Amino acid sequence: MPVFLSTSAPDFEAKFRALLSAKREDSPDVDDTVARIIADVRCRGDRAVVELTERFDRLTLDPAGMAFTAEEIAAQCAKVPDAERQALETAAERIRAYHVRQLPDDQQWTDPEGATLGWRWTAVSAAGLYVPGGLASYPSSVLMNAIPAKVAGVDRLAITVPTPDGVVNPLVLLAARIAGVDEVYRIGGAQAIAALAYGTETIAPVDKITGPGNAFVAAAKRRVFGKVGIDMIAGPSEILVIADRDNDPDWIALDLMSQAEHDESAQSLLITDDAEFGRAVAEAVEKRLETLERRAIAGASWRDFGAVITVADLDEAAELSDRIAPEHLELCVADPEALSGKIRHAGAIFLGQWTPEAIGDYVGGPNHVLPTARSARFSSGLSVLDFMKRTTLSKMSPDALRACGPAAEVLAKSESLEAHGLSVTARLRKLNG
Amino acid sequence: MPVFLSTSAPDFEAKFRALLSAKREDSPDVDDTVARIIADVRCRGDRAVVELTERFDRLTLDPAGMAFTAEEIAAQCAKVPDAERQALETAAERIRAYHVRQLPDDQQWTDPEGATLGWRWTAVSAAGLYVPGGLASYPSSVLMNAIPAKVAGVDRLAITVPTPDGVVNPLVLLAARIAGVDEVYRIGGAQAIAALAYGTETIAPVDKITGPGNAFVAAAKRRVFGKVGIDMIAGPSEILVIADRDNDPDWIALDLMSQAEHDESAQSLLITDDAEFGRAVAEAVEKRLETLERRAIAGASWRDFGAVITVADLDEAAELSDRIAPEHLELCVADPEALSGKIRHAGAIFLGQWTPEAIGDYVGGPNHVLPTARSARFSSGLSVLDFMKRTTLSKMSPDALRACGPAAEVLAKSESLEAHGLSVTARLRKLNG
Repeated sequence: MPVFLSTSAPDFEAKFRALLSAKREDSPDVDDTVARIIADVRCRGDRAVVELTERFDRLTLDPAGMAFTAEEIAAQCAKVPDAERQALETAAERIRAYHVRQLPDDQQWTDPEGATLGWRWTAVSAAGLYVPGGLASYPSSVLMNAIPAKVAGVDRLAITVPTPDGVVNPLVLLAARIAGVDEVYRIGGAQAIAALAYGTETIAPVDKITGPGNAFVAAAKRRVFGKVGIDMIAGPSEILVIADRDNDPDWIALDLMSQAEHDESAQSLLITDDAEFGRAVAEAVEKRLETLERRAIAGASWRDFGAVITVADLDEAAELSDRIAPEHLELCVADPEALSGKIRHAGAIFLGQWTPEAIGDYVGGPNHVLPTARSARFSSGLSVLDFMKRTTLSKMSPDALRACGPAAEVLAKSESLEAHGLSVTARLRKLNG
Repeated sequence: MPVFLSTSAPDFEAKFRALLSAKREDSPDVDDTVARIIADVRCRGDRAVVELTERFDRLTLDPAGMAFTAEEIAAQCAKVPDAERQALETAAERIRAYHVRQLPDDQQWTDPEGATLGWRWTAVSAAGLYVPGGLASYPSSVLMNAIPAKVAGVDRLAITVPTPDGVVNPLVLLAARIAGVDEVYRIGGAQAIAALAYGTETIAPVDKITGPGNAFVAAAKRRVFGKVGIDMIAGPSEILVIADRDNDPDWIALDLMSQAEHDESAQSLLITDDAEFGRAVAEAVEKRLETLERRAIAGASWRDFGAVITVADLDEAAELSDRIAPEHLELCVADPEALSGKIRHAGAIFLGQWTPEAIGDYVGGPNHVLPTARSARFSSGLSVLDFMKRTTLSKMSPDALRACGPAAEVLAKSESLEAHGLSVTARLRKLNG
């Protein structure tokens, strides 16, 4: 059973703080190993990647075979049944339609002093997307990472996906093809991140790397950050459901379990203004845990990190939610829009009882790569902007320089940066003749 | 003298690559020290901060004295001469006017299936700004970091600025006041970053930390990343000037020196389509280096990392520029707009001969915190967006769930996430009666 808390209990604050600070993930310290792998790939290129793939994935490649050929991809895609193909296409279409709206506008204007100012957005030239192999090899994540990159205008999008023992997931290749991915390499781990960041004889380096991965991948991404851009380092998934009594407890139980089944470290929280409803949901969870395929994982997550919190009213729910800053927030209440308006920190909000979080994982449209571990306080889900960058533009007219130059001269002097000041002074002298 | 390169020389490509990959910064490995400092501040709070400040800044504080009082700030601000105050106010006004235009729009729409989708931007609640002490204590950087935060709507903005031996820079406090900073603490180093990230008895934790600093500060920011958001880790400053022969060599020389004088590791590059003009600029630099106050620093930077590159035409200049991906790019050519249109990777572009880069450091309006070390390939200068985050919104109507739900069920099944599928199935069953 999960923890049951109530804001009316005298020890609530202490228990809630404990819940917030619970360490859900014990990342092994793989940093030294990862540093060695990266150094090896930088030094020996393809040869290092081939050897590491042999060691970790029990797969013998030669450099020419690292990339899937177009024929190999076509053969794998042909294995996918129609229903799955159509579902992937529906998802891709909806994700694309949502993300196209994120394309930012350039701006330019001339201010009263005569300075023409603005900015311009451009796409990253080349991006790499890491896709985990094995159990967590999700075609939906390929769509969620690759489509924003392609919408942004990334010219070259490469995927690395390990195929341990040679096992390939055809859905991942189909998702890549639907999303317009340009290159797919059957490599993984820190060696894949190193190859994407620094390049090898076969793999050209990219400018930005995104996508989820295990502790080795996360440590490698941290290490190459700066050489290339990276997305966030994702932690275990989380959901907070705020629900009133007018909900089917079983639906809410399933929503909670749909995060819990991801990972024993996942966290599913329910906040309700009706203690009895909270108990009914907990009972519904127990019942579902009798039969769910992933009941071992979901049960451990719910037992160790789950919680049912009873509040006096929905304002209190909103306050607690902002302290949790959840990755996913489901609002199953009579007026979800009103409650949503009171929320400041959340990765994604799902409004009303017809919007289970799982819709957002696949076909809602918004991205499912979202900030975890309270980082919604300061960061956002993946978007088109993650694959673009902004260049600021300024052009001073002679009048604008006359108007603004003297202030720059004063500030340069106050910061003891003489050449800064002189570069303005020389021009003002000419202007003032 | 700097390196002279020409794209017409047979060894150009090798030399240009060497220039691109030159390691300009030898960061000392302070990671272990920083890890200990952070652990100490997390464990002992104010006491650790006070002891570390005594050790590193030779300054005895008690916790109550860590923050400047309003009276202390007012007394410091009163010391600033009128010319400097007015210059700071002019700069602040122009920076604010530019950044207000960066405020993003929320969006919401209903798609043909009946799903209401969108997103909403909100400000980070609390931000911390690190300001270096001593030589690199720049009031302009206070404005450039603090104004975007306040424009974004950050409720609480705290500054930490070390005051070694008790020496205070009144201009920094005045810039903070003009920018609307809420709290100023006289602490620095890794201990200041730790205090901002984790909080102490006296300092409430923040959600985002920005601002430049030395190797200790940079290592501390890397370590607290994830617990809080951080801005980029800035490297030494750089400028690339693309200039044709119709420029005053002395102006261009001063523009190159205005980066070189920052730091011996700074890099100043000139690309020109006229070899003779390139030599004239190099001569003008030598002449200026005879008298510049910071000639030791500027001269070392120019000698070790400067370069004059002659190209056949401006198209070639644009290509090289994109490979350099400069932090600052000055286009001193007849048609700077046309050349700008050919550039993809640059932090900030300054168009035409009346826009020396120093204008952008102070009063242009755009931010002067910009991506260094070729990171303009994948990142942008500091902006209002760095202090905001986006929450995605989805609401499915019953019709939308009927239309999109089945695809989600198929994909959940293909990813072996049964509860995901069931959370949709349960609702569809009800809808389909």
